Amino acid sequence: MNIETFVQQSEGKWRSMRSGHSLAFQQFEDVLSEVEIKNVDPSSSSIQELIESSNLDSKATTTCPFQMEWKAESDWEPDDPSDVTSGSCLLVPIAINETEGKIIRSVGYAESEFAVSDYQFLEDGTFLLKTQYEQSIAEERIWFVSENVRCRSSVLRTSAGSGILQTSFASEVRRLNIQ
Amino acid sequence: MNIETFVQQSEGKWRSMRSGHSLAFQQFEDVLSEVEIKNVDPSSSSIQELIESSNLDSKATTTCPFQMEWKAESDWEPDDPSDVTSGSCLLVPIAINETEGKIIRSVGYAESEFAVSDYQFLEDGTFLLKTQYEQSIAEERIWFVSENVRCRSSVLRTSAGSGILQTSFASEVRRLNIQ
Repeated sequence: MNIETFVQQSEGKWRSMRSGHSLAFQQFEDVLSEVEIKNVDPSSSSIQELIESSNLDSKATTTCPFQMEWKAESDWEPDDPSDVTSGSCLLVPIAINETEGKIIRSVGYAESEFAVSDYQFLEDGTFLLKTQYEQSIAEERIWFVSENVRCRSSVLRTSAGSGILQTSFASEVRRLNIQ
Repeated sequence: MNIETFVQQSEGKWRSMRSGHSLAFQQFEDVLSEVEIKNVDPSSSSIQELIESSNLDSKATTTCPFQMEWKAESDWEPDDPSDVTSGSCLLVPIAINETEGKIIRSVGYAESEFAVSDYQFLEDGTFLLKTQYEQSIAEERIWFVSENVRCRSSVLRTSAGSGILQTSFASEVRRLNIQ
């Protein structure tokens, strides 16, 4: 598995079931959402600006930048119309070698800030992503269990110590365009 | 990581938050439970009987059989006293080499029957377990995110094809005996 193949397999629309676990409070949060992942032209100005604003080598090239859009509906307050969160971010992978590299993100996952993550593939194709934010460290893993089903887990740590704040798990099923 | 170290790290009492995702029906099931994992004497008759009833080499030896007990309380019908499930099973690892082997289970995870699973460790210590039942295939993965927090995911497939029936994810926090 390399980053190009991984992004290619991830492209499309996904229906996501995501469960968040707050470990200290033992609370569950279940969210259904739509996720769309699509290619972005590597030469577009938004991608070039992201590369420039990172501290990575300005000659770094990316073959497969992509955009992720999501629209989530929380189960907490189903009658509250403001309780629908959505957003999008640009992701720019910069491969170091076949199995490792960095990903520049326009918006982080755990905190809404620009971030540079480290990624790595395990021998079975599991994608590991580690992001250091100002207040926390997010560790995500994504693995395909079939062509059209992928799993995604995350662990959020305090950046100071080894405290685990919360975990999450998403089961994502590809939406096939049958209409 | 090898099986002895993994079992040693797993011993103790855990508070588990588990979310089940039914993919076809897009239903969530959140369950809080207590899990206890403890050593069992390899020479005990129950372990010897399990090894004999498997089709594995009768000279196979195990260094670290263990027992897993759980008591779960479902969120579906909190007022129903019968809605508490509990159980226990014996697990007998038979190492083939440092990173692979088989585990004999007195009771399966997905179906209540005796089962032999294949296990494997990935390079980052992630434990993969695959069990073929009569009607389904269960794929589990367990990884430690700290000494006292571990994550456990499962995917249940139809044994005939590639259909994914359900997934689950558990965040397990060790109960420290402060008392």
